[in-house]
Amino acid sequence: MRIAVDAMGGDNAPGEIVSGAIESVEFLDEGDEVLLIGPKEKLESDFRELKKYKGVIRVVDAPDVIGMDEPPIESLRKKVKSSIAVMAKLAKLGQADAVISAGNTGACVAAFQMRMRNLPGVNRPGIAVVFPTFEGPVTICDVGANIVCKPINLYQYAVMSTLYSKHILGIEEPRVGLMSIGQEDAKGNEIVKKARELIKSDEKLNFVGNIEGRDIFNGVCDVAICDGFVGNVVLKLTEGLVDGLFKAIKHELMGEKVRLAMKFKPVIKRIYKKHDYNEYGGAPLLGVNGTALICHGSSVSRTIKNAINTSRDYYVKKVNDKIMDYLTSSIVKDGG
Amino acid sequence: MRIAVDAMGGDNAPGEIVSGAIESVEFLDEGDEVLLIGPKEKLESDFRELKKYKGVIRVVDAPDVIGMDEPPIESLRKKVKSSIAVMAKLAKLGQADAVISAGNTGACVAAFQMRMRNLPGVNRPGIAVVFPTFEGPVTICDVGANIVCKPINLYQYAVMSTLYSKHILGIEEPRVGLMSIGQEDAKGNEIVKKARELIKSDEKLNFVGNIEGRDIFNGVCDVAICDGFVGNVVLKLTEGLVDGLFKAIKHELMGEKVRLAMKFKPVIKRIYKKHDYNEYGGAPLLGVNGTALICHGSSVSRTIKNAINTSRDYYVKKVNDKIMDYLTSSIVKDGG
Repeated sequence: MRIAVDAMGGDNAPGEIVSGAIESVEFLDEGDEVLLIGPKEKLESDFRELKKYKGVIRVVDAPDVIGMDEPPIESLRKKVKSSIAVMAKLAKLGQADAVISAGNTGACVAAFQMRMRNLPGVNRPGIAVVFPTFEGPVTICDVGANIVCKPINLYQYAVMSTLYSKHILGIEEPRVGLMSIGQEDAKGNEIVKKARELIKSDEKLNFVGNIEGRDIFNGVCDVAICDGFVGNVVLKLTEGLVDGLFKAIKHELMGEKVRLAMKFKPVIKRIYKKHDYNEYGGAPLLGVNGTALICHGSSVSRTIKNAINTSRDYYVKKVNDKIMDYLTSSIVKDGG
Repeated sequence: MRIAVDAMGGDNAPGEIVSGAIESVEFLDEGDEVLLIGPKEKLESDFRELKKYKGVIRVVDAPDVIGMDEPPIESLRKKVKSSIAVMAKLAKLGQADAVISAGNTGACVAAFQMRMRNLPGVNRPGIAVVFPTFEGPVTICDVGANIVCKPINLYQYAVMSTLYSKHILGIEEPRVGLMSIGQEDAKGNEIVKKARELIKSDEKLNFVGNIEGRDIFNGVCDVAICDGFVGNVVLKLTEGLVDGLFKAIKHELMGEKVRLAMKFKPVIKRIYKKHDYNEYGGAPLLGVNGTALICHGSSVSRTIKNAINTSRDYYVKKVNDKIMDYLTSSIVKDGG
């Protein structure tokens, strides 16, 4: 299998990305190859250790870079030789079986959708992020690929996330919750109400009904479905709040005796470790015809290594075939 | 001023509500009266100490109660003598200058809107919740009154929350952020993009542009505007996450020596205290023609006492007059 990794994507590129690719070598199978996409000359001269991995890691030239804050569509149009554009093209041409980037999320979504197209049966892809909660991993979809969702999109996110949660996270019958503002059937906007009916009508899904914001963290569901606007707010709010709380704890501890503060450090570290998104590597763009993982902008080598591992798992377990089989035979179809 | 308090609203009613009313007596002015709305006979026999406050606290009979999880509209129709319905009617008749409830939020919003009507110039009321963040209080509006917002609603929430933040929280020129999924102008759905133009066009507002979920907690704004669906998810997610994190810390500390755990207790308590929503008492339903505060379902006596205090502040400082003056003279009008 050939796994294309965006060497220039993210706040810690290319150093952490290259390191992640190198770290992944230990678990690659024979015949597997990691393609590092970026300015070839520069990468090969800056990271001479890459020579050692000939036949396993190969640099594919992409001289341009799309910045983290550049407008996605415009920059894709201008920078046809950017790492994101090049890796999407490789996937399209069948020269890469998976694409992984910690770069500009909007540009990734646009390029991957445009080049890889949707899986048969899928109307719109969605990004699924795994939240490491205190009650276990919760998969949230969509977190930003599709900000104006139709009911059918939300239904398909429920299906795709269920299959992801089952086959990649190993959760037997993932409980699916639909994000709303109250548990009653009547709550939510029209889109959510219609999506609820669609999801409910599919008896193969383990649907637990509407959930509220707090339910993501209290163990009532394994999968949480929402539109990309709400999901993106949820994702970033959670990051901001967790950072803020740990900062506050640190600040309060500073006012304490140094010895006490030091004793508390391992406690905080343990909590952090249990809820570290880097463990999950990247967020799959579910519904595209290929294996695409989008990583956090602040990804470190371990994130990339784990993403490479996840992409192998996704590919080997044929999650896309399962999605396709499910959706093409589902009785729930787009009602408009 | 007459302040109607729903004696039967919330998980800790009527005990904590009655206590809150009694605790508020210390700061009431001459002529102020707290009306406790609920089943008169039962309240007066269960809380005999109320006799001592004759002339300051008066029980107004409302034999019915709307449960926390009952469908709002239906239950209001059936239970015309519920505490929520009765207090809304008192406000309508001019027999109460403020209404406060920790009961069924949906029923409160519906009853208050229906009976009190909107302030001149206001299209739709919104609930504004004050988040006690590490960087200071942030007012978020709407958190659930209006789940399908028009751009004009979001603009008016920006105006009303600004005036609330300024006059009640004492923030001189509140910085207004519009909740979206990226800082660039082009990000967000169509409603948000149009709202952005409206807010931007009003130079009297201190608009800082789009904000993301994380920005609520990192000090970039004093006011955050969003539709009621997103706001409700934000509110409940924050509650759930904070609870979850503190539980996790507690859990980890349990694995430590008891003495260490005990030493950490005051640290956690200090953090809790600094970020305690009970301090702010209740969330105003901004835009109704009256003073209406909706309190958290788990309100305790201190919450109610603080809400009574806030309602006095709101009333005395004539926040509604300021909203009305601003919006009736604003150049930004409903474009459809």
